Amino acid sequence: MSIRLEQLVERLGGQLKGDANIEVLGIAPLDAAGSTHITFLSNPKFRAQADQTQAAALILSEADDAQVQNYAGARIVVARNAYAYFARAAQLFQAQSEVVASPGIHASAVVDATATVAADAVIGPHVVIEAGAVIGARARIDAGSFIGRNARVGEETHFHARATLHHGCEIGARGIVHSGAVIGADGLGFANEAGQWIKIPQVGRVMIADDVEIGANTTIDRGALADTVIEEGVKLDNQIQIAHNCHIGAHTAIAACAGIAGSARIGKYCSIGGAAMIHGHITIVDKVHVSAGTLALRSILEPGQYTGFYPITEHRDWEKSAALVRNLGTMREKIRALEKTLKALTQEQAAQPPFSENQEENE
Amino acid sequence: MSIRLEQLVERLGGQLKGDANIEVLGIAPLDAAGSTHITFLSNPKFRAQADQTQAAALILSEADDAQVQNYAGARIVVARNAYAYFARAAQLFQAQSEVVASPGIHASAVVDATATVAADAVIGPHVVIEAGAVIGARARIDAGSFIGRNARVGEETHFHARATLHHGCEIGARGIVHSGAVIGADGLGFANEAGQWIKIPQVGRVMIADDVEIGANTTIDRGALADTVIEEGVKLDNQIQIAHNCHIGAHTAIAACAGIAGSARIGKYCSIGGAAMIHGHITIVDKVHVSAGTLALRSILEPGQYTGFYPITEHRDWEKSAALVRNLGTMREKIRALEKTLKALTQEQAAQPPFSENQEENE
Amino acid sequence: MSIRLEQLVERLGGQLKGDANIEVLGIAPLDAAGSTHITFLSNPKFRAQADQTQAAALILSEADDAQVQNYAGARIVVARNAYAYFARAAQLFQAQSEVVASPGIHASAVVDATATVAADAVIGPHVVIEAGAVIGARARIDAGSFIGRNARVGEETHFHARATLHHGCEIGARGIVHSGAVIGADGLGFANEAGQWIKIPQVGRVMIADDVEIGANTTIDRGALADTVIEEGVKLDNQIQIAHNCHIGAHTAIAACAGIAGSARIGKYCSIGGAAMIHGHITIVDKVHVSAGTLALRSILEPGQYTGFYPITEHRDWEKSAALVRNLGTMREKIRALEKTLKALTQEQAAQPPFSENQEENE
Repeated sequence: MSIRLEQLVERLGGQLKGDANIEVLGIAPLDAAGSTHITFLSNPKFRAQADQTQAAALILSEADDAQVQNYAGARIVVARNAYAYFARAAQLFQAQSEVVASPGIHASAVVDATATVAADAVIGPHVVIEAGAVIGARARIDAGSFIGRNARVGEETHFHARATLHHGCEIGARGIVHSGAVIGADGLGFANEAGQWIKIPQVGRVMIADDVEIGANTTIDRGALADTVIEEGVKLDNQIQIAHNCHIGAHTAIAACAGIAGSARIGKYCSIGGAAMIHGHITIVDKVHVSAGTLALRSILEPGQYTGFYPITEHRDWEKSAALVRNLGTMREKIRALEKTLKALTQEQAAQPPFSENQEENE
Repeated sequence: MSIRLEQLVERLGGQLKGDANIEVLGIAPLDAAGSTHITFLSNPKFRAQADQTQAAALILSEADDAQVQNYAGARIVVARNAYAYFARAAQLFQAQSEVVASPGIHASAVVDATATVAADAVIGPHVVIEAGAVIGARARIDAGSFIGRNARVGEETHFHARATLHHGCEIGARGIVHSGAVIGADGLGFANEAGQWIKIPQVGRVMIADDVEIGANTTIDRGALADTVIEEGVKLDNQIQIAHNCHIGAHTAIAACAGIAGSARIGKYCSIGGAAMIHGHITIVDKVHVSAGTLALRSILEPGQYTGFYPITEHRDWEKSAALVRNLGTMREKIRALEKTLKALTQEQAAQPPFSENQEENE
Repeated sequence: MSIRLEQLVERLGGQLKGDANIEVLGIAPLDAAGSTHITFLSNPKFRAQADQTQAAALILSEADDAQVQNYAGARIVVARNAYAYFARAAQLFQAQSEVVASPGIHASAVVDATATVAADAVIGPHVVIEAGAVIGARARIDAGSFIGRNARVGEETHFHARATLHHGCEIGARGIVHSGAVIGADGLGFANEAGQWIKIPQVGRVMIADDVEIGANTTIDRGALADTVIEEGVKLDNQIQIAHNCHIGAHTAIAACAGIAGSARIGKYCSIGGAAMIHGHITIVDKVHVSAGTLALRSILEPGQYTGFYPITEHRDWEKSAALVRNLGTMREKIRALEKTLKALTQEQAAQPPFSENQEENE
């Protein structure tokens, strides 16, 4: 349950300064770290805090190393990307403390005889795995989760308690699916006939690549005819809705409560802010950031940050500004009227010879 | 696993042109359909694609039939509503390929002795059905779902894995409840007493009529004293919240992530866009469309489309426009000041006899 | 299944007028109450209804008592806070009709040998309780719920069917957790390295105090390093997302579909409207009300009501107003140009002696 600094740099790289034999028991933020912790500086604005930290060791970048001069611990790991280094170090500590589940299928799980479960997979209590499903090596399906007919779960992928993967859907290796997530429910597909809705069977799948994380109570609908696709490395927070036939590009991250409507196509390396909404059938190119609370109504074809939400104010001020927003047309008309009157006036003025000239004429 | 065109029109109607004996194996979009598929044209703007499709047969409307002249397949089903026809045809294909679950109660299900389960219903593994509940003919309750005390599930209604129907609540025939949906949890009902919240027991029910579909992780709260009501044919997408004592009119469709606050009353044949929010205690009449991302604060008493969300722009532009929105009051003041100054000026001008007149006077 | 008015005031206080021996069978609103019900008047605007109610008895405030003169039932309970009194009375009626579950662990539940379950707790079918977890006295864990390793559930706390409390997380006494809620899933914590996301293990907990209610399908993420904290008396509606390391102050109520981003700190006695979004790392002081549909981007340091959402209008009008909102910069420029022109004009006028003066000069 401890790591020597020497071991740390052996595993994760970085340049070590100071006593390599010191053992650290865990990782903590600059201000909370004590003499048994390693800490990290990932934002230059906290350099003063780094100078004061009580931590046994400090991870920072080369640039910050040159500026942090007074850190008493004097054991420093210089990393190319201090924040990513912190993440990997934290993973090492977590691996040490993690309770490793024993491989095998819990007696209360219901696994169809035609399902294929790797011998070293862990299947928890009350799990249901239907006919033809395939569970990869070292995968872990926690209590109460449901894996539908012919669905596939890749190696080392982890379903937390009470998650759902519907029939025919697939997720690759090293995925994480949090509790309550539902992958492969029907999309909202109906034809309207005289006011009534005729259901369009949703026969596509959800195809999820490797290294994808899916947050708690997030829903990803199966495709209508073709598939819904989530590329590798995508990270989805909680309570996100991804509708049928969406395509989410690799390494895109989406924050909680966002909604992606049907057949929207989002590029790679995008980020979508919390509660943002992406309209159906639009395209967002790579490296677009949509801010929180923003509704993207039309395609976004240039990288950049895009925003659109009403600024918050005291309620009374909002009431006034909202009334004015509704009446912007009137405001524009008034401006036009002013422009017209003023133009007429200045033309009249111009048409009238200035008084002094008239004076001359009078003379 | 195939349907002859002749069978199709026998079942679904429509006027068939060309070889009635051709068998089709499935349905596909215009551009993806091959020689074993039937396809459909539901939007005139794709007529050129219809002319080029490789499909074995083509469903279209009379109007489109007159315009699509070059379709090589030459087997055509003319339908009154091509999209609804497609939906019904797709249902036929799906029925052929569907795995039919065997009636009966899975050994791992826990069904109270006082519950009534139709002999031809299908009760999956780890399902819990409490005392007094009634499960109708051919209903299907999938793995891990929960049906509370005295709840009722109508004929042919299908609960997907891990859905919940709480005590006393009812759903009619041919309903579909997707995974993670929670019907009949308590509404947010509290009385405030000196800053603390006293719980108001939620003793109403959720009453859901026939042919209702409820999306994954959608929540419908039970009424406080009276019931929450969902009329027939309503279609609810994923992650919708319907608060206590709402009333949703027949054949209304609500897109994902929408929220309907307590005691709101929505009419029939409405559509509510994704992430739209309907305030509590308001009334929305029949045939209203609330756009995505829109908050309806007051009752809507005329049919039509209603919208209100901040337009998305590049972030820098938004910052400017948002600052101006906050200061619309100032802008209005400036316009008023301009109007006043200009009025004073034009009155002054009017008060002054025009120069030419003065000239005359001078003479 | 009935309560005498005398018993009611013995239990809940208040001043009783009229026959104390009358028994009431339940509680109902003013307009629905019949001769076996007690009803309540909590809003003066319904005084006329109170005069007409058929109820056997009426709860109201002293001020309303002075105004409601014609109520025929003539049995009145005068309460300091009529609405809170109603809530407590409704609790009494509910307690009478509630089906009391028998203490003990259902045979189908999977409870680790090292977990501690109070003898009078109720553990439902298919529940899973992992190693080291502690379930307090008279707690109730309903069907299909999951309590993770070393998690703790306080006395009389009730998990409805299919709720989740992850490892190490704690909830205090008298809590209510509704179906589908997920407490303690990982927050969205990643370090970006060359476009890819490196997971930061989420090793904090969720610490929930006493008397907290958590709505259906609500998610509360565990802290990254430190804990996520929910203080006593907080009431959370359905489908709320509370991200890692948030801190929600005592007696704050949050309506459905709201989202609180990471490390946000919300004060005591606040209310957050439905679908409101609170940005990460901001502070909201005590007694702040954020309106529904509002995004709080920056800290709010003064109590009050704050609002920001786009007003709804007919779609055509919105299209115009949205176009103008995008072009507010142009509007401002036009106003500036007008101001400039007008200023120049008025200065020119001022520079010119008025005509009458010129006349004089001419003379």
